[in-house]
Amino acid sequence: MPGACVSGLKDLKNCVEAQQFDRAMLEELFVIADAMSEVKPGSRESTMLQGFLMSTLFYEPSTRTRLSFEGAMGKLGGGILSTESAGEYSSAAKGETLEDTIRTVEGYADIVVLRHFTAGAARRAADAIESPVINAGDGPGQHPTQALLDTYTIYNELGRLDDIKVGLVGDLANGRTVRSLATMLCNFENFVFVAPEVVKMKDDIKAELDANGAKWRESEDLLGVASEVDVLYQTRIQKERFGDRLDEYEACRGVYTVDEKVMAAMKKTSIVMHPLPRLDEIAPECDADPRAAYFRQARNGLFIRMALLKVLLKV
Amino acid sequence: MPGACVSGLKDLKNCVEAQQFDRAMLEELFVIADAMSEVKPGSRESTMLQGFLMSTLFYEPSTRTRLSFEGAMGKLGGGILSTESAGEYSSAAKGETLEDTIRTVEGYADIVVLRHFTAGAARRAADAIESPVINAGDGPGQHPTQALLDTYTIYNELGRLDDIKVGLVGDLANGRTVRSLATMLCNFENFVFVAPEVVKMKDDIKAELDANGAKWRESEDLLGVASEVDVLYQTRIQKERFGDRLDEYEACRGVYTVDEKVMAAMKKTSIVMHPLPRLDEIAPECDADPRAAYFRQARNGLFIRMALLKVLLKV
Amino acid sequence: MPGACVSGLKDLKNCVEAQQFDRAMLEELFVIADAMSEVKPGSRESTMLQGFLMSTLFYEPSTRTRLSFEGAMGKLGGGILSTESAGEYSSAAKGETLEDTIRTVEGYADIVVLRHFTAGAARRAADAIESPVINAGDGPGQHPTQALLDTYTIYNELGRLDDIKVGLVGDLANGRTVRSLATMLCNFENFVFVAPEVVKMKDDIKAELDANGAKWRESEDLLGVASEVDVLYQTRIQKERFGDRLDEYEACRGVYTVDEKVMAAMKKTSIVMHPLPRLDEIAPECDADPRAAYFRQARNGLFIRMALLKVLLKV
Repeated sequence: MPGACVSGLKDLKNCVEAQQFDRAMLEELFVIADAMSEVKPGSRESTMLQGFLMSTLFYEPSTRTRLSFEGAMGKLGGGILSTESAGEYSSAAKGETLEDTIRTVEGYADIVVLRHFTAGAARRAADAIESPVINAGDGPGQHPTQALLDTYTIYNELGRLDDIKVGLVGDLANGRTVRSLATMLCNFENFVFVAPEVVKMKDDIKAELDANGAKWRESEDLLGVASEVDVLYQTRIQKERFGDRLDEYEACRGVYTVDEKVMAAMKKTSIVMHPLPRLDEIAPECDADPRAAYFRQARNGLFIRMALLKVLLKV
Repeated sequence: MPGACVSGLKDLKNCVEAQQFDRAMLEELFVIADAMSEVKPGSRESTMLQGFLMSTLFYEPSTRTRLSFEGAMGKLGGGILSTESAGEYSSAAKGETLEDTIRTVEGYADIVVLRHFTAGAARRAADAIESPVINAGDGPGQHPTQALLDTYTIYNELGRLDDIKVGLVGDLANGRTVRSLATMLCNFENFVFVAPEVVKMKDDIKAELDANGAKWRESEDLLGVASEVDVLYQTRIQKERFGDRLDEYEACRGVYTVDEKVMAAMKKTSIVMHPLPRLDEIAPECDADPRAAYFRQARNGLFIRMALLKVLLKV
Repeated sequence: MPGACVSGLKDLKNCVEAQQFDRAMLEELFVIADAMSEVKPGSRESTMLQGFLMSTLFYEPSTRTRLSFEGAMGKLGGGILSTESAGEYSSAAKGETLEDTIRTVEGYADIVVLRHFTAGAARRAADAIESPVINAGDGPGQHPTQALLDTYTIYNELGRLDDIKVGLVGDLANGRTVRSLATMLCNFENFVFVAPEVVKMKDDIKAELDANGAKWRESEDLLGVASEVDVLYQTRIQKERFGDRLDEYEACRGVYTVDEKVMAAMKKTSIVMHPLPRLDEIAPECDADPRAAYFRQARNGLFIRMALLKVLLKV
């Protein structure tokens, strides 16, 4: 498989698929991310990437993801070439291929962060140039840095990656995030899926978990699941996936909500995660609870991306 | 009042309302702004904010204001996370609250500059996070850095803040700028308002001036006012405020224009200010006059914002 | 002529027209560009422009050109104030003149890179302010940095500027690029024009070449021309120039295509250039040929712009 696991982080040439990272590489990366969280303004470390340039080439806007990458580069003193309108990019509009665009941008930047609406675009980009490419989401394809930051958050909050029971809640059919996460964690976790009927976890992921010997089951009892898991990973029911079927959307929405009652059922040492943005699937009353890890999770995206930039730029 | 005057600049946690600044704080800030105007490329001072990141989170575009803030951060070596499409920000479009967005951005940036279309948005943002927030204009609410740069310009050009007579000319009803300025200067200035009938200064500001013992009067004699004031502050009649009533707009426009005749009536030591952009309310023939201070005023925005960033980031 | 050749690069105040550069200045600039291509991340040279700010003020989007300039500034440690929506720039939309906008931006930035849809806009901007202005394309007017990077590519690839035969192919009527290049090279090159009838090189450029004693001829034999030139400069037939006349566009398109057969006819020491983006006027099969210089040409844009920034900022 192109981009499959290499012998270690030092040989990593790009970040295109979650499957590129084996257990050893994850742990190595998380140690670097820990160090990144300690970088202070004005310190020597904060100029580590001085003189390097990162291009954020976004064919669809995703301000949150873009700012997280640009923050990571900025925190290490690197420069940023930013565009969130690459879709209207005059060259693309004139019919230029993705490969030509990427080769041109490689002329200006040392590393390219690509967001695209087509599955497989990141792999095509990585194959077209020598410089490293980071996949910041390619349509229904992958979003590996989200899976990395989720896994890092579990490691960082719970202090371990093994013997963890994860409850995935919400839209498990369409959520690229939970699907990638399940793939990344499949070697060392147990899963419980809690989802309304129409957005249940799809069979491909279940088969992947089976193939890796990971345990999973489905449940409709959110309170029960909350009481037994170490991580309760809530997701948003994505209205935009339902198209005209707004009645189905309304039926799904609000079925499984994390509120004070759910928090009360949870273990003291458990955490609540969410990829954000949220609507009302986590009640604001939960925010003050120290087990509400979702804003720390977003912040961990900064540290994981700092670590990835350091690794890929071989600094 | 939330955010009201604190004991001094060193305790300032954010910049949300003009009322946060008392006389002592203004003077302290202006001394810092003076120093900022001396920062040279390549100097030690020009890396003062190295490793800090500022997010310019703009829910409505204001390129001028955004560039001024980003210039201030850049001049001190800080990094910039920029978005002027926060309104279409995918998360906001999906229904995320301002508070959630701000908390997420706080994870990436050390300071947030917010432009929003809703009065009070900056206060909500400042209350949601620990990191400092600067209000870059929140709808019909406040635009305190504009008031600061205006006041700094008066201090910088005239060498004092007391015993100054200010003539405010133009659209005094709708101009957030002149309203904020009147509030900031109310303790130590005399005012003359020169405005077409339909865009006269509103009663709330007049009452605030009265309450503070500030002198004000209204006049229709621009030449007379020009001859007596120290500062002639011209503003644009804002077409966009008139909606369909274009005949009213046309009636107001051009009633009070600053031209060579007005300049000739002014004292040698007086100055002309304007928040820009201008249309024809100041004739281009005035630009070469040394008393035309409006482009210096725009530049002072850079120095004031550099000073604010330094103060709020506690460097 | 305003902005015509000055006595040397050290007196250059802006970069508005290709005609500002005489032979000596070009050679001096190319030596600096060579040095720029050696600047390494983390080196002393990579902080050369630390504390300087460049504003990319784009009234029409051109992501490629913008990123190239921003990359150049970033590679030398300078800061960037970026906008590609200056056309919707709230101030411009409110009726502010270009001169006022430029004067305001001068208050924030040390150098302004202007892209505008109106011929002559860059000259107006340069006349309005003291700080240097670089023309990044002003409508049907000039795009001097493209001509500079093209000429630099010839110098860099062939090792000389004299005794070079250039074949210009494709849309020679509308292509600002080839027209500017012909102007810049008119003192020391021979030209062969290969173009479909409706997009032939216009008489004004032919007259300019005649006036400078440059040799030129027209040909319909691409293979023959390929075998004799040192530089085969292919261009895109620009669909957007044909408006409704799509049949004319289709008739032109594909008449002269560079493919393996053309490459086979070329000399071993010749190169193929293209300003990019390309559609199918150069077959992808040519990309791997070492004589395919077009992506190196794009990269040279970075080095030329780094050199220009250094020269204009007098560092």
